[in-house]
Amino acid sequence: MRRLKVIISYDGTHFSGYQVQPGERTVQAELERVLAIMHKGEKIKVTASGRTDARVHATGQTLHFDTPLSIPTEKYHKALNVQLPRDIRVLSVEEVANDFHARYSVVGKRYRYIWSCELIQSPFRRHYTVETNGVKPNVEAMQEAAKAIIGTHDFSCFCAANTSVKDKVRTVKTLQFEWHGEELHMVIEGNGFLYNMVRIIAGTLWEVGVGRRTIDNLALVVASEDRDKAGKTAPPQGLYLEKVFY
Amino acid sequence: MRRLKVIISYDGTHFSGYQVQPGERTVQAELERVLAIMHKGEKIKVTASGRTDARVHATGQTLHFDTPLSIPTEKYHKALNVQLPRDIRVLSVEEVANDFHARYSVVGKRYRYIWSCELIQSPFRRHYTVETNGVKPNVEAMQEAAKAIIGTHDFSCFCAANTSVKDKVRTVKTLQFEWHGEELHMVIEGNGFLYNMVRIIAGTLWEVGVGRRTIDNLALVVASEDRDKAGKTAPPQGLYLEKVFY
Repeated sequence: MRRLKVIISYDGTHFSGYQVQPGERTVQAELERVLAIMHKGEKIKVTASGRTDARVHATGQTLHFDTPLSIPTEKYHKALNVQLPRDIRVLSVEEVANDFHARYSVVGKRYRYIWSCELIQSPFRRHYTVETNGVKPNVEAMQEAAKAIIGTHDFSCFCAANTSVKDKVRTVKTLQFEWHGEELHMVIEGNGFLYNMVRIIAGTLWEVGVGRRTIDNLALVVASEDRDKAGKTAPPQGLYLEKVFY
Repeated sequence: MRRLKVIISYDGTHFSGYQVQPGERTVQAELERVLAIMHKGEKIKVTASGRTDARVHATGQTLHFDTPLSIPTEKYHKALNVQLPRDIRVLSVEEVANDFHARYSVVGKRYRYIWSCELIQSPFRRHYTVETNGVKPNVEAMQEAAKAIIGTHDFSCFCAANTSVKDKVRTVKTLQFEWHGEELHMVIEGNGFLYNMVRIIAGTLWEVGVGRRTIDNLALVVASEDRDKAGKTAPPQGLYLEKVFY
Protein backbone atom coordinates (compact mmCIF):
# COMPACT_ATOMS: atom_id res chain seq x y z
CA MET A 1 0.00 0.00 0.00
CA ARG A 2 1.21 3.50 -0.87
CA ARG A 3 0.08 6.64 0.88
CA LEU A 4 -0.71 9.62 -1.36
CA LYS A 5 -0.91 13.26 -0.30
CA VAL A 6 -3.32 15.15 -2.53
CA ILE A 7 -3.95 18.90 -2.71
CA ILE A 8 -7.31 19.94 -4.13
CA SER A 9 -9.24 23.10 -4.94
CA TYR A 10 -13.02 23.22 -4.90
CA ASP A 11 -15.84 25.62 -5.53
CA GLY A 12 -17.99 25.02 -2.47
CA THR A 13 -21.15 26.56 -3.97
CA HIS A 14 -22.87 23.32 -4.85
CA PHE A 15 -21.57 21.16 -1.99
CA SER A 16 -23.11 20.51 1.42
CA GLY A 17 -19.60 20.92 2.78
CA TYR A 18 -16.53 18.70 2.67
CA GLN A 19 -17.56 15.78 4.85
CA VAL A 20 -19.73 12.84 3.81
CA GLN A 21 -23.37 13.22 4.85
CA PRO A 22 -26.03 10.74 3.80
CA GLY A 23 -28.06 11.99 0.84
CA GLU A 24 -25.96 15.13 0.37
CA ARG A 25 -23.48 16.10 -2.32
CA THR A 26 -20.16 16.55 -0.55
CA VAL A 27 -16.52 16.86 -1.65
CA GLN A 28 -15.44 13.76 0.25
CA ALA A 29 -18.27 11.71 -1.25
CA GLU A 30 -17.27 12.76 -4.77
CA LEU A 31 -13.63 11.87 -4.10
CA GLU A 32 -14.50 8.47 -2.63
CA ARG A 33 -16.94 7.76 -5.48
CA VAL A 34 -14.20 8.41 -8.04
CA LEU A 35 -11.60 6.42 -6.08
CA ALA A 36 -14.00 3.47 -5.89
CA ILE A 37 -14.28 3.57 -9.71
CA MET A 38 -10.48 3.66 -10.04
CA HIS A 39 -10.17 0.74 -7.56
CA LYS A 40 -12.85 -1.42 -9.20
CA GLY A 41 -15.39 -0.92 -6.46
CA GLU A 42 -13.05 -1.11 -3.49
CA LYS A 43 -13.80 1.56 -0.88
CA ILE A 44 -10.86 3.92 -0.36
CA LYS A 45 -11.25 6.13 2.69
CA VAL A 46 -10.05 9.71 2.25
CA THR A 47 -8.77 11.73 5.21
CA ALA A 48 -8.65 15.53 4.89
CA SER A 49 -6.92 18.20 6.97
CA GLY A 50 -10.34 19.09 8.32
CA ARG A 51 -13.86 19.72 7.13
CA THR A 52 -15.26 22.82 5.48
CA ASP A 53 -18.89 23.92 5.68
CA ALA A 54 -21.48 24.17 2.91
CA ARG A 55 -20.59 26.89 0.36
CA VAL A 56 -17.08 27.35 1.80
CA HIS A 57 -14.34 27.10 -0.83
CA ALA A 58 -10.84 25.66 -0.87
CA THR A 59 -7.83 26.52 -2.97
CA GLY A 60 -5.50 24.23 -1.02
CA GLN A 61 -7.41 21.57 0.92
CA THR A 62 -5.08 18.65 1.63
CA LEU A 63 -5.90 14.99 2.10
CA HIS A 64 -4.38 11.52 2.13
CA PHE A 65 -5.46 8.01 1.29
CA ASP A 66 -3.83 4.62 0.90
CA THR A 67 -3.94 2.85 -2.43
CA PRO A 68 -2.85 -0.60 -3.64
CA LEU A 69 -2.46 0.76 -7.22
CA SER A 70 1.09 1.20 -8.44
CA ILE A 71 0.39 3.67 -11.27
CA PRO A 72 2.65 6.75 -11.26
CA THR A 73 1.44 9.78 -9.31
CA GLU A 74 1.20 11.85 -12.51
CA LYS A 75 -1.22 9.35 -14.03
CA TYR A 76 -3.13 9.22 -10.77
CA HIS A 77 -3.42 12.99 -10.88
CA LYS A 78 -4.81 12.99 -14.43
CA ALA A 79 -7.17 10.08 -13.81
CA LEU A 80 -8.66 11.84 -10.79
CA ASN A 81 -9.25 15.07 -12.71
CA VAL A 82 -10.83 13.22 -15.64
CA GLN A 83 -13.31 11.49 -13.33
CA LEU A 84 -14.02 14.26 -10.83
CA PRO A 85 -16.73 16.87 -11.41
CA ARG A 86 -15.47 20.24 -12.62
CA ASP A 87 -16.02 21.97 -9.29
CA ILE A 88 -13.24 19.87 -7.73
CA ARG A 89 -9.76 19.96 -9.22
CA VAL A 90 -6.75 18.01 -8.03
CA LEU A 91 -3.74 20.33 -7.95
CA SER A 92 -1.07 17.81 -6.95
CA VAL A 93 -0.54 14.15 -6.02
CA GLU A 94 2.55 13.12 -4.11
CA GLU A 95 3.68 9.84 -2.55
CA VAL A 96 4.42 10.27 1.16
CA ALA A 97 5.65 8.19 4.09
CA ASN A 98 3.04 6.01 5.78
CA ASP A 99 3.19 8.10 8.94
CA PHE A 100 2.01 11.23 7.13
CA HIS A 101 -1.52 12.04 8.23
CA ALA A 102 -3.51 14.80 6.51
CA ARG A 103 -5.18 15.75 9.79
CA TYR A 104 -2.83 14.82 12.63
CA SER A 105 0.33 16.04 10.89
CA VAL A 106 -1.04 19.56 10.32
CA VAL A 107 1.15 22.28 11.86
CA GLY A 108 -0.76 25.25 10.45
CA LYS A 109 -3.45 26.53 8.10
CA ARG A 110 -4.10 29.66 6.13
CA TYR A 111 -7.60 30.95 5.34
CA ARG A 112 -8.79 33.88 3.26
CA TYR A 113 -12.07 35.77 3.66
CA ILE A 114 -13.33 38.08 0.90
CA TRP A 115 -15.87 40.91 0.96
CA SER A 116 -16.87 42.67 -2.28
CA CYS A 117 -17.29 46.33 -1.39
CA GLU A 118 -18.46 47.74 -4.73
CA LEU A 119 -21.87 49.40 -4.76
CA ILE A 120 -23.32 46.61 -6.91
CA GLN A 121 -21.75 43.22 -6.44
CA SER A 122 -20.71 41.66 -9.75
CA PRO A 123 -23.02 38.74 -10.61
CA PHE A 124 -19.84 36.76 -11.32
CA ARG A 125 -18.70 37.16 -7.71
CA ARG A 126 -21.98 36.35 -5.94
CA HIS A 127 -20.91 32.84 -4.88
CA TYR A 128 -17.30 33.83 -4.15
CA THR A 129 -17.47 36.95 -1.99
CA VAL A 130 -19.79 38.52 0.56
CA GLU A 131 -21.42 41.71 -0.60
CA THR A 132 -21.42 44.84 1.53
CA ASN A 133 -23.75 46.95 -0.67
CA GLY A 134 -21.03 49.51 -1.21
CA VAL A 135 -19.99 49.81 2.44
CA LYS A 136 -16.21 50.28 2.66
CA PRO A 137 -15.03 49.58 6.21
CA ASN A 138 -12.24 51.29 8.13
CA VAL A 139 -9.53 48.73 7.47
CA GLU A 140 -6.97 50.48 9.68
CA ALA A 141 -9.33 50.00 12.64
CA MET A 142 -9.88 46.34 11.72
CA GLN A 143 -6.12 45.78 11.47
CA GLU A 144 -5.55 47.49 14.81
CA ALA A 145 -8.30 45.45 16.50
CA ALA A 146 -6.77 42.26 15.07
CA LYS A 147 -3.79 42.74 17.40
CA ALA A 148 -5.91 41.39 20.24
CA ILE A 149 -6.39 38.16 18.26
CA ILE A 150 -2.83 37.55 17.09
CA GLY A 151 -0.95 35.29 19.50
CA THR A 152 -1.84 32.32 21.67
CA HIS A 153 -5.24 32.48 23.37
CA ASP A 154 -8.17 30.41 24.47
CA PHE A 155 -10.44 31.21 21.54
CA SER A 156 -13.73 29.99 23.03
CA CYS A 157 -15.18 33.40 22.09
CA PHE A 158 -14.69 32.59 18.40
CA CYS A 159 -15.90 29.00 18.52
CA ALA A 160 -19.37 27.90 17.42
CA ALA A 161 -21.30 26.52 20.39
CA ASN A 162 -21.91 23.12 18.81
CA THR A 163 -18.42 21.66 19.12
CA SER A 164 -16.98 18.78 21.10
CA VAL A 165 -13.42 20.13 21.14
CA LYS A 166 -12.18 20.62 24.73
CA ASP A 167 -8.90 22.48 24.31
CA LYS A 168 -9.67 25.81 22.69
CA VAL A 169 -6.19 27.28 22.90
CA ARG A 170 -4.82 28.13 19.46
CA THR A 171 -2.14 30.39 18.06
CA VAL A 172 -2.99 32.96 15.38
CA LYS A 173 0.30 33.75 13.71
CA THR A 174 -0.75 36.44 11.23
CA LEU A 175 -3.97 38.29 10.42
CA GLN A 176 -3.78 40.79 7.59
CA PHE A 177 -6.17 42.85 5.53
CA GLU A 178 -5.49 43.59 1.86
CA TRP A 179 -7.46 45.46 -0.78
CA HIS A 180 -7.66 43.78 -4.18
CA GLY A 181 -9.45 46.42 -6.21
CA GLU A 182 -12.79 46.89 -4.44
CA GLU A 183 -12.57 43.51 -2.72
CA LEU A 184 -11.28 43.34 0.84
CA HIS A 185 -9.36 40.20 1.81
CA MET A 186 -8.62 39.03 5.34
CA VAL A 187 -5.76 36.52 5.39
CA ILE A 188 -5.31 34.59 8.61
CA GLU A 189 -2.73 31.97 9.47
CA GLY A 190 -2.44 29.91 12.63
CA ASN A 191 -1.59 26.51 14.05
CA GLY A 192 -5.23 25.46 14.04
CA PHE A 193 -8.74 26.85 13.97
CA LEU A 194 -11.87 26.03 15.94
CA TYR A 195 -15.25 25.39 14.35
CA ASN A 196 -16.41 28.60 12.56
CA MET A 197 -13.47 30.51 14.08
CA VAL A 198 -12.43 32.35 10.90
CA ARG A 199 -16.00 33.33 10.06
CA ILE A 200 -16.67 34.60 13.58
CA ILE A 201 -13.40 36.59 13.54
CA ALA A 202 -14.38 38.02 10.12
CA GLY A 203 -17.83 38.95 11.42
CA THR A 204 -16.46 40.53 14.59
CA LEU A 205 -13.71 42.56 12.90
CA TRP A 206 -16.25 43.68 10.29
CA GLU A 207 -18.26 45.25 13.12
CA VAL A 208 -15.15 47.21 14.11
CA GLY A 209 -14.67 48.30 10.50
CA VAL A 210 -18.17 49.75 10.27
CA GLY A 211 -18.08 51.39 13.70
CA ARG A 212 -20.46 49.03 15.51
CA ARG A 213 -17.70 47.84 17.88
CA THR A 214 -14.62 49.61 19.25
CA ILE A 215 -11.05 48.54 18.68
CA ASP A 216 -10.54 48.15 22.44
CA ASN A 217 -13.51 45.82 22.71
CA LEU A 218 -11.62 43.00 20.98
CA ALA A 219 -9.32 42.33 23.94
CA LEU A 220 -12.41 42.03 26.18
CA VAL A 221 -14.06 39.63 23.76
CA VAL A 222 -11.00 37.35 23.68
CA ALA A 223 -10.59 37.48 27.49
CA SER A 224 -14.29 36.69 28.04
CA GLU A 225 -13.99 33.24 26.43
CA ASP A 226 -17.68 33.77 25.66
CA ARG A 227 -19.08 33.22 22.17
CA ASP A 228 -21.93 35.64 22.87
CA LYS A 229 -19.49 38.54 23.29
CA ALA A 230 -18.16 38.18 19.73
CA GLY A 231 -19.90 39.27 16.53
CA LYS A 232 -21.98 37.43 13.98
CA THR A 233 -20.64 34.49 12.03
CA ALA A 234 -19.82 35.90 8.57
CA PRO A 235 -21.46 34.07 5.61
CA PRO A 236 -19.76 30.95 4.21
CA GLN A 237 -19.28 32.00 0.57
CA GLY A 238 -16.55 34.51 1.47
CA LEU A 239 -14.30 31.85 3.03
CA TYR A 240 -11.44 29.93 1.40
CA LEU A 241 -9.18 27.27 2.93
CA GLU A 242 -6.02 28.38 1.17
CA LYS A 243 -3.12 26.31 2.46
CA VAL A 244 -2.40 23.55 4.95
CA PHE A 245 1.08 23.43 6.43
CA TYR A 246 2.81 20.19 7.51
CA MET B 1 -44.69 57.24 -20.83
CA ARG B 2 -40.96 57.56 -20.14
CA ARG B 3 -38.30 55.57 -21.94
CA LEU B 4 -35.55 54.13 -19.75
CA LYS B 5 -32.15 52.96 -20.91
CA VAL B 6 -30.84 50.23 -18.64
CA ILE B 7 -27.37 48.65 -18.55
CA ILE B 8 -27.16 45.19 -17.02
CA SER B 9 -24.58 42.54 -16.23
CA TYR B 10 -25.44 38.85 -16.09
CA ASP B 11 -23.80 35.54 -15.42
CA GLY B 12 -25.08 33.50 -18.37
CA THR B 13 -24.35 30.12 -16.77
CA HIS B 14 -27.88 29.32 -15.69
CA PHE B 15 -29.75 31.03 -18.53
CA SER B 16 -30.93 29.59 -21.84
CA GLY B 17 -29.71 32.82 -23.38
CA TYR B 18 -31.04 36.35 -23.34
CA GLN B 19 -34.22 36.06 -25.38
CA VAL B 20 -37.56 34.75 -24.14
CA GLN B 21 -38.18 31.10 -25.03
CA PRO B 22 -41.22 29.22 -23.75
CA GLY B 23 -40.40 27.03 -20.76
CA GLU B 24 -36.81 28.26 -20.49
CA ARG B 25 -35.11 30.50 -17.94
CA THR B 26 -33.92 33.53 -19.89
CA VAL B 27 -32.63 36.98 -18.97
CA GLN B 28 -35.43 38.77 -20.81
CA ALA B 29 -38.07 36.62 -19.12
CA GLU B 30 -36.65 37.46 -15.68
CA LEU B 31 -36.59 41.18 -16.50
CA GLU B 32 -40.15 41.16 -17.80
CA ARG B 33 -41.35 39.10 -14.83
CA VAL B 34 -39.90 41.66 -12.43
CA LEU B 35 -41.24 44.62 -14.43
CA ALA B 36 -44.70 43.05 -14.41
CA ILE B 37 -44.52 42.90 -10.60
CA MET B 38 -43.45 46.56 -10.45
CA HIS B 39 -46.28 47.52 -12.84
CA LYS B 40 -48.98 45.56 -11.01
CA GLY B 41 -49.23 42.86 -13.65
CA GLU B 42 -48.97 45.07 -16.71
CA LYS B 43 -46.71 43.55 -19.36
CA ILE B 44 -43.70 45.78 -20.09
CA LYS B 45 -41.80 44.72 -23.20
CA VAL B 46 -38.03 44.96 -22.91
CA THR B 47 -35.87 45.56 -25.99
CA ALA B 48 -32.17 44.70 -25.81
CA SER B 49 -29.24 45.62 -28.06
CA GLY B 50 -29.33 42.04 -29.26
CA ARG B 51 -29.57 38.52 -27.93
CA THR B 52 -26.85 36.42 -26.34
CA ASP B 53 -26.74 32.62 -26.40
CA ALA B 54 -27.03 30.17 -23.53
CA ARG B 55 -24.07 30.40 -21.12
CA VAL B 56 -22.80 33.63 -22.73
CA HIS B 57 -22.22 36.43 -20.23
CA ALA B 58 -22.70 40.18 -20.29
CA THR B 59 -21.01 42.96 -18.37
CA GLY B 60 -22.71 45.71 -20.35
CA GLN B 61 -25.85 44.49 -22.12
CA THR B 62 -28.08 47.46 -22.81
CA LEU B 63 -31.85 47.62 -23.13
CA HIS B 64 -34.80 49.97 -23.12
CA PHE B 65 -38.42 49.88 -22.11
CA ASP B 66 -41.28 52.32 -21.69
CA THR B 67 -42.87 52.82 -18.32
CA PRO B 68 -45.86 54.79 -17.03
CA LEU B 69 -44.30 54.94 -13.54
CA SER B 70 -42.91 58.30 -12.49
CA ILE B 71 -40.57 57.08 -9.73
CA PRO B 72 -37.00 58.48 -9.92
CA THR B 73 -34.48 56.43 -11.92
CA GLU B 74 -32.40 55.78 -8.78
CA LYS B 75 -35.37 54.17 -7.08
CA TYR B 76 -36.15 52.23 -10.23
CA HIS B 77 -32.57 50.99 -10.22
CA LYS B 78 -32.77 49.79 -6.62
CA ALA B 79 -36.22 48.24 -7.03
CA LEU B 80 -35.04 46.23 -10.04
CA ASN B 81 -31.99 44.90 -8.20
CA VAL B 82 -34.05 43.97 -5.15
CA GLN B 83 -36.47 41.93 -7.28
CA LEU B 84 -34.08 40.44 -9.83
CA PRO B 85 -32.23 37.16 -9.21
CA ARG B 86 -28.60 37.55 -8.17
CA ASP B 87 -27.22 36.43 -11.52
CA ILE B 88 -28.61 39.60 -13.14
CA ARG B 89 -27.56 43.01 -11.82
CA VAL B 90 -28.72 46.38 -13.07
CA LEU B 91 -25.70 48.67 -13.38
CA SER B 92 -27.50 51.86 -14.42
CA VAL B 93 -30.92 53.29 -15.24
CA GLU B 94 -31.20 56.48 -17.27
CA GLU B 95 -34.13 58.35 -18.77
CA VAL B 96 -33.70 58.81 -22.52
CA ALA B 97 -35.51 60.42 -25.43
CA ASN B 98 -38.36 58.44 -26.93
CA ASP B 99 -36.44 57.91 -30.16
CA PHE B 100 -33.64 56.03 -28.38
CA HIS B 101 -33.83 52.38 -29.35
CA ALA B 102 -31.61 49.79 -27.63
CA ARG B 103 -31.27 47.81 -30.85
CA TYR B 104 -31.69 50.23 -33.76
CA SER B 105 -29.63 53.03 -32.21
CA VAL B 106 -26.55 50.81 -31.72
CA VAL B 107 -23.44 52.17 -33.44
CA GLY B 108 -21.01 49.61 -32.05
CA LYS B 109 -20.36 46.78 -29.63
CA ARG B 110 -17.42 45.40 -27.74
CA TYR B 111 -17.05 41.73 -26.82
CA ARG B 112 -14.43 39.89 -24.78
CA TYR B 113 -13.47 36.24 -25.11
CA ILE B 114 -11.43 34.52 -22.36
CA TRP B 115 -9.36 31.34 -22.40
CA SER B 116 -7.76 30.03 -19.19
CA CYS B 117 -4.38 28.64 -20.17
CA GLU B 118 -3.17 27.26 -16.85
CA LEU B 119 -2.44 23.54 -16.73
CA ILE B 120 -5.40 22.94 -14.43
CA GLN B 121 -8.32 25.34 -14.85
CA SER B 122 -9.40 26.84 -11.55
CA PRO B 123 -12.76 25.40 -10.47
CA PHE B 124 -13.84 29.00 -9.84
CA ARG B 125 -13.33 29.87 -13.52
CA ARG B 126 -15.03 26.85 -15.10
CA HIS B 127 -18.18 28.76 -16.07
CA TYR B 128 -16.34 31.97 -17.00
CA THR B 129 -13.47 30.92 -19.25
CA VAL B 130 -12.66 28.18 -21.75
CA GLU B 131 -9.94 25.82 -20.62
CA THR B 132 -7.00 24.94 -22.84
CA ASN B 133 -5.47 22.23 -20.62
CA GLY B 134 -2.28 24.21 -20.27
CA VAL B 135 -1.88 25.00 -23.98
CA LYS B 136 -0.47 28.52 -24.38
CA PRO B 137 -1.00 29.71 -27.96
CA ASN B 138 1.29 31.89 -30.06
CA VAL B 139 -0.46 35.19 -29.45
CA GLU B 140 1.80 37.13 -31.83
CA ALA B 141 0.60 34.87 -34.65
CA MET B 142 -3.05 35.33 -33.60
CA GLN B 143 -2.60 39.09 -33.49
CA GLU B 144 -0.95 39.09 -36.92
CA ALA B 145 -3.71 36.91 -38.40
CA ALA B 146 -6.32 39.27 -36.95
CA LYS B 147 -5.20 41.94 -39.42
CA ALA B 148 -7.18 40.12 -42.12
CA ILE B 149 -10.32 40.57 -40.01
CA ILE B 150 -9.94 44.20 -39.00
CA GLY B 151 -11.74 46.51 -41.42
CA THR B 152 -14.95 46.33 -43.45
CA HIS B 153 -15.73 42.94 -45.00
CA ASP B 154 -18.53 40.61 -45.90
CA PHE B 155 -18.21 38.32 -42.87
CA SER B 156 -20.30 35.39 -44.18
CA CYS B 157 -17.33 33.15 -43.27
CA PHE B 158 -17.82 33.98 -39.59
CA CYS B 159 -21.61 33.73 -39.53
CA ALA B 160 -23.50 30.70 -38.22
CA ALA B 161 -25.47 29.06 -41.06
CA ASN B 162 -28.85 29.42 -39.32
CA THR B 163 -29.37 33.13 -39.76
CA SER B 164 -31.87 35.19 -41.70
CA VAL B 165 -29.65 38.29 -41.96
CA LYS B 166 -29.02 39.22 -45.62
CA ASP B 167 -26.37 41.93 -45.42
CA LYS B 168 -23.29 40.40 -43.87
CA VAL B 169 -20.98 43.38 -44.31
CA ARG B 170 -19.66 44.59 -40.97
CA THR B 171 -16.72 46.67 -39.76
CA VAL B 172 -14.36 45.30 -37.13
CA LYS B 173 -12.66 48.32 -35.65
CA THR B 174 -10.22 46.72 -33.22
CA LEU B 175 -9.24 43.16 -32.30
CA GLN B 176 -6.65 42.80 -29.57
CA PHE B 177 -5.19 40.03 -27.46
CA GLU B 178 -4.13 40.64 -23.86
CA TRP B 179 -2.71 38.35 -21.19
CA HIS B 180 -4.24 38.71 -17.73
CA GLY B 181 -2.04 36.35 -15.71
CA GLU B 182 -2.54 32.97 -17.35
CA GLU B 183 -5.81 34.00 -18.96
CA LEU B 184 -5.82 35.15 -22.56
CA HIS B 185 -8.40 37.78 -23.51
CA MET B 186 -9.50 38.65 -27.04
CA VAL B 187 -11.19 42.06 -27.13
CA ILE B 188 -13.07 42.88 -30.31
CA GLU B 189 -14.98 46.03 -31.22
CA GLY B 190 -17.04 46.72 -34.31
CA ASN B 191 -20.15 48.35 -35.66
CA GLY B 192 -22.11 45.12 -35.43
CA PHE B 193 -21.66 41.37 -35.25
CA LEU B 194 -23.35 38.47 -37.05
CA TYR B 195 -24.75 35.43 -35.27
CA ASN B 196 -21.87 33.56 -33.53
CA MET B 197 -19.35 35.85 -35.25
CA VAL B 198 -17.16 36.50 -32.19
CA ARG B 199 -17.08 32.84 -31.21
CA ILE B 200 -16.19 31.73 -34.75
CA ILE B 201 -13.44 34.37 -34.93
CA ALA B 202 -12.15 33.18 -31.52
CA GLY B 203 -12.19 29.55 -32.67
CA THR B 204 -10.45 30.37 -35.97
CA LEU B 205 -7.73 32.56 -34.46
CA TRP B 206 -7.17 29.92 -31.78
CA GLU B 207 -6.30 27.46 -34.56
CA VAL B 208 -3.66 29.94 -35.76
CA GLY B 209 -2.32 30.24 -32.23
CA VAL B 210 -1.79 26.49 -31.86
CA GLY B 211 -0.33 26.04 -35.36
CA ARG B 212 -3.29 24.29 -36.96
CA ARG B 213 -3.85 27.16 -39.41
CA THR B 214 -1.42 29.62 -41.00
CA ILE B 215 -1.51 33.38 -40.56
CA ASP B 216 -1.93 33.82 -44.32
CA ASN B 217 -4.95 31.54 -44.35
CA LEU B 218 -7.12 34.15 -42.63
CA ALA B 219 -7.30 36.43 -45.69
CA LEU B 220 -8.48 33.45 -47.77
CA VAL B 221 -11.11 32.57 -45.19
CA VAL B 222 -12.52 36.10 -45.18
CA ALA B 223 -12.47 36.32 -49.01
CA SER B 224 -14.18 32.93 -49.35
CA GLU B 225 -17.37 34.18 -47.65
CA ASP B 226 -17.77 30.49 -46.74
CA ARG B 227 -18.50 29.41 -43.16
CA ASP B 228 -16.94 26.02 -43.80
CA LYS B 229 -13.54 27.61 -44.44
CA ALA B 230 -13.39 29.13 -40.93
CA GLY B 231 -12.64 27.29 -37.70
CA LYS B 232 -14.85 25.84 -34.99
CA THR B 233 -17.26 27.98 -33.00
CA ALA B 234 -15.53 28.54 -29.64
CA PRO B 235 -17.59 27.55 -26.55
CA PRO B 236 -20.10 30.04 -25.12
CA GLN B 237 -18.81 30.35 -21.55
CA GLY B 238 -15.72 32.32 -22.66
CA LEU B 239 -17.79 35.12 -24.23
CA TYR B 240 -18.84 38.44 -22.68
CA LEU B 241 -20.88 41.25 -24.22
CA GLU B 242 -18.93 44.08 -22.65
CA LYS B 243 -20.23 47.36 -24.01
CA VAL B 244 -22.83 48.68 -26.41
CA PHE B 245 -22.11 52.03 -28.05
CA TYR B 246 -24.83 54.50 -29.09
